[in-house]
Amino acid sequence: MRVLVVNFGSSTLKYKLFEMRTEKVLLDGHIEFSRGGPVPAARRMLRHIRGKFPLSTLSAVGHRVVHGGPKYGTSALITDETLEDIADYASFAPLHNPPAAHGIRLMQRLLPNADHVAVFDTGFHRDMPPKAYLYGLPYDLALKHGIRRYGFHGASHQYVAQRCAVLMGRPLRKIKLITCHIGSGTSIAAVSGGRSVDTSMGMSPLQGVIMGTRSGTIDPAIVEFLMEKEKLGYRAIIELLNKRSGLFGLSGLSGDIRVLESAAKSGHRQAQVALDVHAYQIKKFIGSYLMALNGADAIVFTAGVGENSARLRADVASSLAFAGVRLDPPANEKGTGERRISTDRSKIALWVIPTNEELMIARETVR
Amino acid sequence: MRVLVVNFGSSTLKYKLFEMRTEKVLLDGHIEFSRGGPVPAARRMLRHIRGKFPLSTLSAVGHRVVHGGPKYGTSALITDETLEDIADYASFAPLHNPPAAHGIRLMQRLLPNADHVAVFDTGFHRDMPPKAYLYGLPYDLALKHGIRRYGFHGASHQYVAQRCAVLMGRPLRKIKLITCHIGSGTSIAAVSGGRSVDTSMGMSPLQGVIMGTRSGTIDPAIVEFLMEKEKLGYRAIIELLNKRSGLFGLSGLSGDIRVLESAAKSGHRQAQVALDVHAYQIKKFIGSYLMALNGADAIVFTAGVGENSARLRADVASSLAFAGVRLDPPANEKGTGERRISTDRSKIALWVIPTNEELMIARETVR
Repeated sequence: MRVLVVNFGSSTLKYKLFEMRTEKVLLDGHIEFSRGGPVPAARRMLRHIRGKFPLSTLSAVGHRVVHGGPKYGTSALITDETLEDIADYASFAPLHNPPAAHGIRLMQRLLPNADHVAVFDTGFHRDMPPKAYLYGLPYDLALKHGIRRYGFHGASHQYVAQRCAVLMGRPLRKIKLITCHIGSGTSIAAVSGGRSVDTSMGMSPLQGVIMGTRSGTIDPAIVEFLMEKEKLGYRAIIELLNKRSGLFGLSGLSGDIRVLESAAKSGHRQAQVALDVHAYQIKKFIGSYLMALNGADAIVFTAGVGENSARLRADVASSLAFAGVRLDPPANEKGTGERRISTDRSKIALWVIPTNEELMIARETVR
Repeated sequence: MRVLVVNFGSSTLKYKLFEMRTEKVLLDGHIEFSRGGPVPAARRMLRHIRGKFPLSTLSAVGHRVVHGGPKYGTSALITDETLEDIADYASFAPLHNPPAAHGIRLMQRLLPNADHVAVFDTGFHRDMPPKAYLYGLPYDLALKHGIRRYGFHGASHQYVAQRCAVLMGRPLRKIKLITCHIGSGTSIAAVSGGRSVDTSMGMSPLQGVIMGTRSGTIDPAIVEFLMEKEKLGYRAIIELLNKRSGLFGLSGLSGDIRVLESAAKSGHRQAQVALDVHAYQIKKFIGSYLMALNGADAIVFTAGVGENSARLRADVASSLAFAGVRLDPPANEKGTGERRISTDRSKIALWVIPTNEELMIARETVR
């Protein structure tokens, strides 16, 4: 069975074709929208696929959708109603849901015989307990508009949690994990028995740890404060918080951790400050989830920065000495791919596990 | 030496007169503004004092001021410039600084021969490291407007930290503490060597743990979302987040923990939900500060709820088993006043220490 996984963003189309019997990637690609937007990009993707496999052999298409709102769990077969809901949830994820809805309509037209499935970034977190997902807002207002913590990167957290259990040789339902998806977007999750019980992002992907260009959590009073001081409308403020803040805004240099790490080494003071804030906020979320879970069996690092920054992982481990964590520096610095980076004596195991969101989406599509 | 400590709020005047040689309270009072606002309240306070001591024996007045902005540490002798700054910082604390500034002018007129000192709620937290006080915002914008985490309840955190060191018989500069000021307003602080290194409130007292009527931390995108969905201006949203949210909004019943505890016992489901959210958020801040401090010597509970809710303290302790915390239930439930509520075997000591912000303000005024 062949499953195509597509991710329509605001300026790119990413795709991977899986053979599900072996879970092997048959081909993949990444197309920047130049002229014409998503339509020529999708046609180019199909030409790429058709060069190797007849399009009629694609049984299903898995669409990555950022926001599933209050209604959807991990995945849903796409119907007119699903599509309408995804478009509606643009109010929760204005940058992400509209291009995804557009991409679904497009692919339905281009591949009318395949089954189309939406896999939601929010899905894995939907069954968090109320104490974790409720904000301190009037309850009737929260219910009326579906205002709650949703959380994102669900496929990634779910994938590395499942993989960690396999690597540890323990049943997923019996272990407590803290999964750290650290990339240009970052979210940390507390996973107990294979289920997400809390996560750092909120109703939107703006809340939580400082990110590439997103502010992460701020005092809600700052929105009003900036509107008054800078004479800006609230849309301009939200744009500022999403696109010109975070590591980029704080460092004045870049939202890319690799650039900041290299600049900090050459003495760029504000780059070092941004890296310190980033590591510190990640540590605080890990600490809060240790308390939420009453301890953990393992902490997993994944995604671009989580997989590649030995400096960040060492920094986090150094603040976990109080909880009996012992880093294995050679494994942290020199190893590659899936590996444990803590010693045998460490009370909480530390793991690096490269994420594979597309495979998780393909599996959900089949299911 | 006699020091009068005054706290002018938006609707009340609280005061305490101290004899500083003994640190004894000579008299105290709490006046609700009825008609006429603060002026008749201040005159009534002075009549109360004059009935027992000549006003000329008041050497100094300590004014509690919520926001000291980027400029002020713990306290400052009041000059025209100080007074102007306090009024200016109304943009950070619109509910609190204007009545304080008004109260200072009033008392200067009524007691022109006394020294007037402002003691700032933000002061104790001013020397936090940048990684704790910086938000993920454009740095030039943050500098320009003084946008940073300030933190509040400074006098309370400082008082209980000093007192905890005395009770533990250890030098303050050598211990790590997490101080939990839990009342209708709530803030948690990480205190290392007698200095605040992080705290849960932010630029304003709106950020952090869910409070009586304040939301605490929310996704910053919710401000825009509510403006659009409810067709409200941003001032109305900030008003909603300050006055109709928090435990009150979530329970639909009350912002008072005692009312919620009693309602939850009689089966009010939403009251129980609100209590769960409250305890859970407090736990997560404690966990994050354990990580920030790399462990702690003691956790201190203070203020109305912190001092009086054995249920809340037991709930928090139960999630700290992983860190070797062992509650002493009889001490927790039956003891009164200053006491340790953990057993000898507990790796982190738990303490209840009634706060005394006014004494701290009086001490700062003398200093």
